[in-house]
Parts: sequence; C-alpha cells; structure tokens
Amino acid sequence: VVIDVHCHVVPRGFPPAPCSCTAHWPKNDPRAEDQAMVMLGDKEFRLVDHRSWDVWRRIADMDQQGVGIQVLSPMPELLSYWMPPQGCLALARHVNGAIAEMIAASPDRFSGLGMVPLQDPELAASELRAIKSEYRLCGVEIGSNINGHPPGAPQFDRFYAEAERLGLAVFVHALHPAATDRIVGHERLQALVSFPLDVGLAAASFITGGVLEKFPNLKVGFSHGGGTLCSFLPRLQSGWNKLAFINSSFASPTDVARKLYFDNIVFDQKLLRYLIDCVGVSQVFAGSDYPFQGGQEFPGKPFEALAFSEREISMLCSGNAMRFLDLSVVDTRHVERRDY
Amino acid sequence: VVIDVHCHVVPRGFPPAPCSCTAHWPKNDPRAEDQAMVMLGDKEFRLVDHRSWDVWRRIADMDQQGVGIQVLSPMPELLSYWMPPQGCLALARHVNGAIAEMIAASPDRFSGLGMVPLQDPELAASELRAIKSEYRLCGVEIGSNINGHPPGAPQFDRFYAEAERLGLAVFVHALHPAATDRIVGHERLQALVSFPLDVGLAAASFITGGVLEKFPNLKVGFSHGGGTLCSFLPRLQSGWNKLAFINSSFASPTDVARKLYFDNIVFDQKLLRYLIDCVGVSQVFAGSDYPFQGGQEFPGKPFEALAFSEREISMLCSGNAMRFLDLSVVDTRHVERRDY
Repeated sequence: VVIDVHCHVVPRGFPPAPCSCTAHWPKNDPRAEDQAMVMLGDKEFRLVDHRSWDVWRRIADMDQQGVGIQVLSPMPELLSYWMPPQGCLALARHVNGAIAEMIAASPDRFSGLGMVPLQDPELAASELRAIKSEYRLCGVEIGSNINGHPPGAPQFDRFYAEAERLGLAVFVHALHPAATDRIVGHERLQALVSFPLDVGLAAASFITGGVLEKFPNLKVGFSHGGGTLCSFLPRLQSGWNKLAFINSSFASPTDVARKLYFDNIVFDQKLLRYLIDCVGVSQVFAGSDYPFQGGQEFPGKPFEALAFSEREISMLCSGNAMRFLDLSVVDTRHVERRDY
Repeated sequence: VVIDVHCHVVPRGFPPAPCSCTAHWPKNDPRAEDQAMVMLGDKEFRLVDHRSWDVWRRIADMDQQGVGIQVLSPMPELLSYWMPPQGCLALARHVNGAIAEMIAASPDRFSGLGMVPLQDPELAASELRAIKSEYRLCGVEIGSNINGHPPGAPQFDRFYAEAERLGLAVFVHALHPAATDRIVGHERLQALVSFPLDVGLAAASFITGGVLEKFPNLKVGFSHGGGTLCSFLPRLQSGWNKLAFINSSFASPTDVARKLYFDNIVFDQKLLRYLIDCVGVSQVFAGSDYPFQGGQEFPGKPFEALAFSEREISMLCSGNAMRFLDLSVVDTRHVERRDY
C-alpha cells in the first residue's frame, strides 16, 4: 500500500465572502468542461479541473498510479494567512468540511489534513479540536512561513502545544517564499527554486527554535523532502558542534532532523537516497503533489528503485505515513499493491 | 598536492579612508599579541590574528594540514559593495596588492583571487586588466549577491565578458545573505543556514540567467559546495523538462551545473559524494575557509575518504583547481603529499 501524504484539494465551490475578506476570498469561475479558474478576489490564481474535488476521478488516478490512500490537504494558497483571522477561519471551516466530505465518500481511500488561521495562533489552537472531532482529520497543513514569520518561532507555541496534546500531525508546505527578488527569469521559477528554499528555512526554524524539545511528541512533516534542509544540515551540525553559544540553546540538529518527517518529492534517486541517509528510513513518506503540474506521478516508485529491504519499502510507502498521521487502522481491501 | 581554493586574507593594515568612505572603511585595531580587531568604520567586525596576513605562519599550517598551495582571497566583508565605487576600488587595490605581496613572498605556495567594485560593473570590468597584469592574480572573488542583486543578473554581463576574455576565474562567496529574518535564534546561525542558502540562490541565478550560454568559456566557482544548489537542482531540472516557457530561456540546469565549479566545504561525506555525483568529478575542488572558525582543516581529506581512483583524487585535490584557475605550471618541489 502506498499512502500519498502530499496531495491537494480545491473544493468544488466556495460560499460568498464575509464582507471583510473580499480582496482574497476564493471563487471557482467555471471554464471549459470540468475546469475552473480559481479567483482570489478579482485575480486569476490557477486553472484547476475536477481532479481537485472529484473523489471518483481521484480514485481512478490513484488506482492507475499505485496509490492506496491519499491524504487530502488544501491547495496551499487557500491557507489565507493574509486574511483577517475570522475570515480565514470561515474559509478554513468550509475547506475542512469539503475535505471531510471527500473522505466520507470513500473512507478506505482517503484521509485528510485541514487548515487553521495560524496568523492568530490562539484561534488556530482552539480550532484544532474541531479538526479532530468534527472533521475527523489527522492534522493540519501549515505554510513554510506565516506572513513572513518562520513557523518555528515561539509565537506559535500555543498552537503546537495543542496539536501535540491532540495527537494531530503538522505538515509544512511551501507558501509565498522568501527572496523571490533573487530569482533571475520567469516568475514560475519561484516554485522550482524558492519553494525548496523556504521549506528548508522552515525546517531550520523548527530545529534552531527548539520546537521538538518543547513538544517532544509533536509530529512535524515537510513538503518537497524538506527542501534545502539536507544540503545545509551538516554545516548546521558542524557549527553546533563547535559553538557553545549555539548548542546551549537547541538540541543537536541531526538528532532533531531524525525526528521530523519528509515527503519524497525530490525528483532524483541519489538525492532521495541521501535524504533518507540523513534523516533515517523511518522519517520519509510518499507524496505526489497531485493534481498539480509540479509533482510526481507514482509516488511510491522512487522508493522501489532504491536498494531497500521489503520491510523498509513498506515503512517508506505506508508505515511512516501511518505513524506520522496516527492512522492506526488502514483498510486495505481495495488497495492491493499494483504493478506500475 | 592539495590546492586550497577557499581561504581568506586580511591585510596586516589599511591606508586611511578616502573621505567618502569612512562609514565602512576597514582598520585593524591591535589587540592581544598577534591579534587585531577588524573595525569597519567604528564597528567591531571580527577578531583576527596573524594567520590572516603572515605568510610563514600560513605555510607552517599548510604543511601540517597537507595543503600544497593556498589560493588567497579577501575576507568577504572586505568586498565593500556598499561603499561608493571609487572608494571600493581604492580598497580593492590595497587588498589586491597585499595578496600579490603574499604570493611574491612564496610563489610556489600561493596563488590568489582579488576583488573589484562590482557595484559598478563597468568599473569592475575595467579593473580586471590590473587583476591579471599588475597583481598577477588568477581571478576574483565576488559576493553571492551584490547589494541584493543576484550575480547571474544581466547587469553584470560586461564584467563576465571581460573575465572570460582575460581567462580570469570568478569565485562566488556567501555575503550578506537574504532572508536572515527567517532565522530563529542567535545571529551567528546566519553563517550556518543563510550562507548556503544565498550561495544556492547565486548559483541558480547563473543557471536561469543563462550566463554560461552568453560566456561559454567563463569559469565560475562557488563556495560551500554551491550551498543549497544540489538540493533543488533536480526540481529545477524537472520543471525545465516540463515547462516550455522556462526551457526556452536557458540551458538544461543539470548540464550547466556540470560546467560550474564547487568547493568541498560541506561537512559530510555522503553530501560530498552526492554533490560530486550531481556536478561531476571534474568540477569540485578543495577548500578550507582558513583561517576562520567555520571552515575545515585538512581540506583534501574529505576526498580521500570516498571511493575514488588515484586519478580522480588527483583531479579533486589539484587538477580541477588548476583548470579553474588556469594554473598551468605548479612548482611541486616543496609540496610533497603528506600523511595526515
């Protein structure tokens, strides 16, 4: 069984904007058959199709790409940290409800990560109970920064404390990255260069912010293989080993990295092998970025090309995801392993 | 023979500031025996010692650490892109002269990279002739950004055209990195996290800016193993493969990366192995960051721990550096290989 922890949802439709949120509120503007332009306020954001919301089309694609279970999460732009918190909360409840409905349509094939208004950490923390009890999701997706603030900053402690208490996973996804003015060329290069950069910064902030020392049972995962983290982790460790004023304030970076989780969307066998060597075979899971163009089909396949044992492959394809998401029971009746 | 391409110099002293440059002009303020505080204007920047300028002390350390030749380059903060160009030029001539004198003291043990006022690309280009003919240096060190501008931006084309014409190497070093507000914790963490990030952005700008398509014989090297580049290069390549509006504007990122050069300061055997797999055994050379704390002693040693042939080790330890720097003749009388 392959569990795809990184794939996205756009609800089929959205309610009208609360009056304070019209500038960024999403709306699906119908286009050609099965397609919609997601409008944010009056701006075109992205052309999507029914794969974004149609459970049965998704299942057909999952069957074809060897995916047993998709863990549905919001299209990151919907996270809406730039809205007033109450408006974002209203949107979050709509999106979380839409994800819950998709799961309910085929609970043996879907699980989900919701969203919360993290620009107001207190409000976000208080909404986590609904994430768990009302929407029955296994965690939340958050941005690699929250309006420019690194997610490992202490201002988010209340939120992590509650996520830890409820056993909810936190999946950190690239969003509105830093330093885009350093990219030479087409703005779409941001997704190729700045996304991994921002995820790497986010992961570093969890390490240097000592988040796991404060919340040892918190489960935190990162999109895109943790982005650039694995390329500077040895340097960070080397500095930590040498500099007393640094190593007194947080735990060994390599040790902490081996408690974080990472998807496998890195587009290269050797890089995936290095990532797994870095963080451990227990910390990496499959992801596709379905249904968006920048992702990878057959998300379990990158693991199979590496020289792992049957048991390790099983951890990488499903066991690690189950531990991350606390999916204690997976119904595998409909999810036999497929040949690619 | 090990050629250490990444090590730094602070001249023993500095002339008085030209009147327009007092705010950032360097001065060595004597401290304890053999030590000096480098002042930039009236701010303390870094405590250095005589290793920064004393040729004979350096040679003793090189002998002890198995280094045959050091390629001397300015302490990066001296690059002074934030000064008026003419003031920076005056400082550059002093620093380049100091490096030339160190080389002259023991020309079989030293080579050098100078500095130019790249905040004025035209002025920088015109100074390259002196770099070659007057100071007899083999290239220049530049920052990973020039006052926030990526070094692969078209505004620097005149400079690269002249460097290519003269056969001078360009070594890109981390400097005043982006997104430091994303670091949680001590400001010294910038050197551990933000330096590799900024070098990665710089390397990406050379690729997406198509610099090597414009100047195919230009030799460009990067500090710190190219920073984060190797962690997002496969993603950049994957996007380039899929997206016509991107791949029409620059050459295949992986192909270009295999024409760039990188030092080996990455602090991990597996990461070094992955880097060399990424960019090729012909593109990586040794570096130490001598005499600064964040570097590595025995800069040839990381290569020896990997399973390379004698010929490949020789390329990594010296051959690649000689090609990068156009060091056609190296006098090896005094630089027999040492046991570590």
